[in-house]
Amino acid sequence: MIRMDCDILVVGAGILGLSSAYHLKKLNPDKEVLTIDRVGGPGQGNSAKSEGGYRNLFSSDVNYLLAESTIEFMHYLDDELGYDFRMDQIGYLFLYSEEQLDAQKAALEKIERRGSEVRILEKRDLKEMIPELATDFKDDDETGLLSLEPVDCGVFGANCGSVDADALVRAYEAEYLRLGGDILYNVEAESLMLEPEMELGISGEPFVWQGVKIGGVRTSRGDIKAGKTVVAAGVWSERLLKPVGIDPYMRPKKRQIFTFRNTSLSRLFNVNGFNSQGVIPLTILPKASILFRPELSEGSIWLACADDYGRSFGLEDDPQAEEGYYTDNIYHVLVKYFSCFEGVRPANMWAGQYAVNSFDGQPVITGFEGMIYVGAASGSGIMKCDALGRIVAAKYEGRDEVELFGERTFTVSDLGIEKRKVESESLII
Amino acid sequence: MIRMDCDILVVGAGILGLSSAYHLKKLNPDKEVLTIDRVGGPGQGNSAKSEGGYRNLFSSDVNYLLAESTIEFMHYLDDELGYDFRMDQIGYLFLYSEEQLDAQKAALEKIERRGSEVRILEKRDLKEMIPELATDFKDDDETGLLSLEPVDCGVFGANCGSVDADALVRAYEAEYLRLGGDILYNVEAESLMLEPEMELGISGEPFVWQGVKIGGVRTSRGDIKAGKTVVAAGVWSERLLKPVGIDPYMRPKKRQIFTFRNTSLSRLFNVNGFNSQGVIPLTILPKASILFRPELSEGSIWLACADDYGRSFGLEDDPQAEEGYYTDNIYHVLVKYFSCFEGVRPANMWAGQYAVNSFDGQPVITGFEGMIYVGAASGSGIMKCDALGRIVAAKYEGRDEVELFGERTFTVSDLGIEKRKVESESLII
Repeated sequence: MIRMDCDILVVGAGILGLSSAYHLKKLNPDKEVLTIDRVGGPGQGNSAKSEGGYRNLFSSDVNYLLAESTIEFMHYLDDELGYDFRMDQIGYLFLYSEEQLDAQKAALEKIERRGSEVRILEKRDLKEMIPELATDFKDDDETGLLSLEPVDCGVFGANCGSVDADALVRAYEAEYLRLGGDILYNVEAESLMLEPEMELGISGEPFVWQGVKIGGVRTSRGDIKAGKTVVAAGVWSERLLKPVGIDPYMRPKKRQIFTFRNTSLSRLFNVNGFNSQGVIPLTILPKASILFRPELSEGSIWLACADDYGRSFGLEDDPQAEEGYYTDNIYHVLVKYFSCFEGVRPANMWAGQYAVNSFDGQPVITGFEGMIYVGAASGSGIMKCDALGRIVAAKYEGRDEVELFGERTFTVSDLGIEKRKVESESLII
Repeated sequence: MIRMDCDILVVGAGILGLSSAYHLKKLNPDKEVLTIDRVGGPGQGNSAKSEGGYRNLFSSDVNYLLAESTIEFMHYLDDELGYDFRMDQIGYLFLYSEEQLDAQKAALEKIERRGSEVRILEKRDLKEMIPELATDFKDDDETGLLSLEPVDCGVFGANCGSVDADALVRAYEAEYLRLGGDILYNVEAESLMLEPEMELGISGEPFVWQGVKIGGVRTSRGDIKAGKTVVAAGVWSERLLKPVGIDPYMRPKKRQIFTFRNTSLSRLFNVNGFNSQGVIPLTILPKASILFRPELSEGSIWLACADDYGRSFGLEDDPQAEEGYYTDNIYHVLVKYFSCFEGVRPANMWAGQYAVNSFDGQPVITGFEGMIYVGAASGSGIMKCDALGRIVAAKYEGRDEVELFGERTFTVSDLGIEKRKVESESLII
């Protein structure tokens, strides 16, 4: 049994937990910062199951700030500190119909005004650069049935790409340990300790007339008391928060990754005009929220589908990928746009759980006496990790503003609930 | 087994379901409107378990508009249409410390500008009007332990009071039936029918590339197909929405009512200066979110406590009141302010479940193809029922604006998610 005290206890050694722990320890070198996780290594919940995409193309200023500063910090970690989490700046390519492009006009103007590198490609150019891509389906019965969107253009963002999410988590872990932070693996957080702010020593505390605070965490290996508890347990946060009546604001939803290695896909690794690697960018189809990217380290394609409705919210401990989800749902659409997928079956597949924020799609960083909670919606964990870790650390210090990497100022309460200030995002996948 | 079609299917014969059904049928006399409920009568979920308070004292314009117009409509139903749901306009009395009053300054100015009848009472006046009320606790060790707030003043709203929630629900039911609406009781909605917008007749539909809609409801007695399904099932809505990946935005939390009939409380029924009935108003203590009101029909006091933290979210089918919650939690505080409760035990008690909207505390009316969802946070069901029913009906018609009772215009999307426009409320209990 462990019986210990610490100044700051971080629950969850995924990307958000370790980024938070790193920045907390960095700002508070004299404080004892302890991170716990129920499994045996970092990022083994959902972080490492991610598609690993990153992008700075967002209509919302909040999304842009959080992602752009994180991307810059990842470059710094990768280039200056010598970590290798394979930042492949292959770009993001949104394939759009005319109508879809029109809907993004205001967003694209905003993105250009920011100075982000973005190009609008005409159909002609796209066909030349990606000969595999089918753009029109007029005379085909089956595509009528699928009611496919034509590809009239592409929106290409250059400062986007992919990272090895697992290696990124390990980089934060290494930096955190280097600063003297502690981690205990195989320790499961079972419940938050809700305590009276002023203990009276009467049985039954806390009563409703008492001020309450979170005093630490009951774990599978004993109680850990903490001056501040940071809940960064991803979709598992609700198991800790719900029993004390705090909403995690994130709903767990299964998401699957399918990978492919067939030789017919080699053409996707020989595409010029987008990036220095000469490969197809991370590409988003104009239909059914299907996206794929080349994984350069293994010469494979990683594919996902961001389906919206029809799948239950709910926590699963060991979600499994379903091959039928690919063959019955994704394949028919995919192969119409990219015939090189004809007859190709997944070489590998896995499933994780996204955290879906169903009211505005953005991360939440909020607090309660003795506690800070950080939750990030779909994809935000990886691509906004550094900014979110810094905001958690600033909230711990009670500061109103925080400087993100690259000297960008951010108002901490913008991601809270009471004074929340986020715009809705139009460039969604 | 039932096998039927209807134009509009309303799930839930509580206050929100029946107000919605009534306004839908009124605006669409030629459409078949069917309401179902899993139990044998109206309002038997949580509506009839309510404290039954109504008020127009709110800082937020949205809350004010929804409540004020509903209160006027209730007067109309009660006075003009001859229903008797015992609208007792006894007023609301918020007891505040100086500090608490200061925090409400801007809210109170706003309320006065609106022309709502509100009075600020000094301690001296309060003590005269309510001799039972203790206002200062300086020399008492135990009150120090309880860290009680002193009563420095009171904020009294005149156009507030209580209704018999059960009778109100039955009034809506009667009006709805009079218009030719149908109700089937003892029919449980088991799941929403998620269907492709264009059916292809292929097994496995809907696929992710298909547009989807809600086509009706599978019930315990067969399928009911509907042009539009209105989900108004209170805390049970999540059982229908979650499996199709739609968030109800409301979290269920147990709330308890304790009633008292002791003779020592008779003094609370002899209080002058507040209302024509000569009784104490619905009174909110400055500590621990405790409130009580006289129930004139039975000469009893109904008491509740709006505790915030420490109690789990989660759906219970048959929540039970806990006497210990009163004796260990509420009693010690209550008796300090009102010594007439000394030694008094509850004569009756019951529990229901509140729906808590944890992001802004306000009702949500949102849609999906083939479906409208209405959910109302804590207390809104009763006191905003008419306005919410009208907004649901306007949303069904695809209108952007709706006229609430008393010729007040309201923008439908203000209670939606995407274009949500609600201010946070400062006058919370």
